[in-house]
Amino acid sequence: MDTNETGTAVTIIGLGLMGRALAGAFLKAGHPTTVWNRTAAKADELVAEGAQSAASLADALTASPLTILCLTDYQAVHELLGAHGSGLDDSEPDDSGPHGPGTHSSGPHSPHPHSPGTHSPGTHSPGPAGTTLVNLTSGDSTQARETAEWAGRHGVRYLDGAIMAVPPVIGTAEAVILLSGPRPVFAAHEPVLAALGTVTHLGADPGLASLYDVAGLAMMWSVLNAWLQGTALLRTAGVDAASYAPFAQRIAAVVATWLPGYAAQIDSGSFPAVVSALETDARAMTHLIEESEAAGVNAELPKLFKSMADRAIAAGHGGEQYPVLIEEFGRPAA
Amino acid sequence: MDTNETGTAVTIIGLGLMGRALAGAFLKAGHPTTVWNRTAAKADELVAEGAQSAASLADALTASPLTILCLTDYQAVHELLGAHGSGLDDSEPDDSGPHGPGTHSSGPHSPHPHSPGTHSPGTHSPGPAGTTLVNLTSGDSTQARETAEWAGRHGVRYLDGAIMAVPPVIGTAEAVILLSGPRPVFAAHEPVLAALGTVTHLGADPGLASLYDVAGLAMMWSVLNAWLQGTALLRTAGVDAASYAPFAQRIAAVVATWLPGYAAQIDSGSFPAVVSALETDARAMTHLIEESEAAGVNAELPKLFKSMADRAIAAGHGGEQYPVLIEEFGRPAA
Repeated sequence: MDTNETGTAVTIIGLGLMGRALAGAFLKAGHPTTVWNRTAAKADELVAEGAQSAASLADALTASPLTILCLTDYQAVHELLGAHGSGLDDSEPDDSGPHGPGTHSSGPHSPHPHSPGTHSPGTHSPGPAGTTLVNLTSGDSTQARETAEWAGRHGVRYLDGAIMAVPPVIGTAEAVILLSGPRPVFAAHEPVLAALGTVTHLGADPGLASLYDVAGLAMMWSVLNAWLQGTALLRTAGVDAASYAPFAQRIAAVVATWLPGYAAQIDSGSFPAVVSALETDARAMTHLIEESEAAGVNAELPKLFKSMADRAIAAGHGGEQYPVLIEEFGRPAA
Repeated sequence: MDTNETGTAVTIIGLGLMGRALAGAFLKAGHPTTVWNRTAAKADELVAEGAQSAASLADALTASPLTILCLTDYQAVHELLGAHGSGLDDSEPDDSGPHGPGTHSSGPHSPHPHSPGTHSPGTHSPGPAGTTLVNLTSGDSTQARETAEWAGRHGVRYLDGAIMAVPPVIGTAEAVILLSGPRPVFAAHEPVLAALGTVTHLGADPGLASLYDVAGLAMMWSVLNAWLQGTALLRTAGVDAASYAPFAQRIAAVVATWLPGYAAQIDSGSFPAVVSALETDARAMTHLIEESEAAGVNAELPKLFKSMADRAIAAGHGGEQYPVLIEEFGRPAA
């Protein structure tokens, strides 16, 4: 009866823009897909595309061997899973309120092929012990580690993840999904998760996905900001943004290729000035500041570069290579 | 007699590490190469490789249709060319001092094939009107424009340039040489200059090479700093720099490909949130700040990102896309 029965079943909890994109990608890849959302109407379109709308959170949590959480924040995750309050406690979930499951449910409530209707709507303590939770809700590494601990205490297999993509690209290789947690748990579900995009396991520490996520964003904003700094400067000389962009693109791509080599300096703790010395960089930073100020554009970013370099030089590292700045980046500002 | 006579003659003035690399690349490409340096001994090795050591600055400036200047700074350029003092005046050069040309000259003083010894050593006002000056000395756009004006007043063809490379890669495609000034002047010498690396003409404004240079450096430092920020953060979770580097590399390369599209927003002055809104970025910046502070690493760079985004949001741009920040980058900090 269900044309999707050949694939592995998946459940998506949380049907915001991103959750709906995740469910859509699983459906497209042929996985029997169960969905659940507090406001059940959000499931309508997915149901029309072949998804099963779970009658209750309990049903949702027991429908599939793999359950994706994609909620507003970790507070919402804790409320759903019965881990309330500050930190995670073990109180029962409250699914009976006006926004509880089932209240707004719609669409066909036929039992899911892999979950033949053994759970009645409104059951408390849905107990996700039979499924693996993959939490793609946005949050920080502390929240991820706390939630993983809660899962561990409850015998729930758990991966924490971060999505480095916007909803429209989910289901394509361009969508980078970062996951962290026990490798065997990842390995068991990797073939299914691959329907979402380029899925990468970062390590056993469940906080890693969040850390890589913000680190990657820092790179994104840095490339964009450097490009904006250069664009602002060149516009004062009549160069439009389109003319400058390919140059900035090329520099960013070239410098990116240096990173593995520079990483070896950091890991060895030795920073010989093979290419150039930090004090040479600092002198050129002065040029950037002066050009920016002379052109009447913002100089805050160049000044921050210089102040961090100056501190490293004052600490005696002027004759070493740029990555020696890891010492400044590795500690709070004085 | 001279095996290099098939190529176009070139003169290099200033034989520091970079000047010697430039001369070496011309020699290797088969160009008859004349060199000159205040301390003439620096020419010895190049002469052994086939260069001609000019007996005087005057000889150097008349030896070839193309003369490269690669000196310590623009002050040194002005002193050599007889454009002394604050700004550029037109006083005579003083080549008779203890460091004047010829004093330390060494190597064979045979007349250059293209400059058959018509200029006596010690001639003042060497008058480079017969050659095109390509000034690759490091400096800023104001100095470049002033020097170009001086050249214009003296009927000297002039290009200003910046070298985005370290000496060892000169002569390979990896060496990016930026040039600005009249396009016909560039076009006339491009085939010869190509011996130095990837030579790019940026436009008629002689200040452009310096501006692109510092803009490119801003990109370089930004990519490196973002990588250091991420590396510092991930080291607190036990991830070594080598493990994180490929991820940072990939993000930088991907974001770089967005720049031409984002440039179109800037040039059109319209910033619809096609991918995401600035206020979404600002919320994620808070995560980066919090993760950095929680991990005990530096948060100055993330805080600067956030403060610039916050100002744009306060100005009403929270629903627009990231490149709307050009307005903040385009004006000095309040």
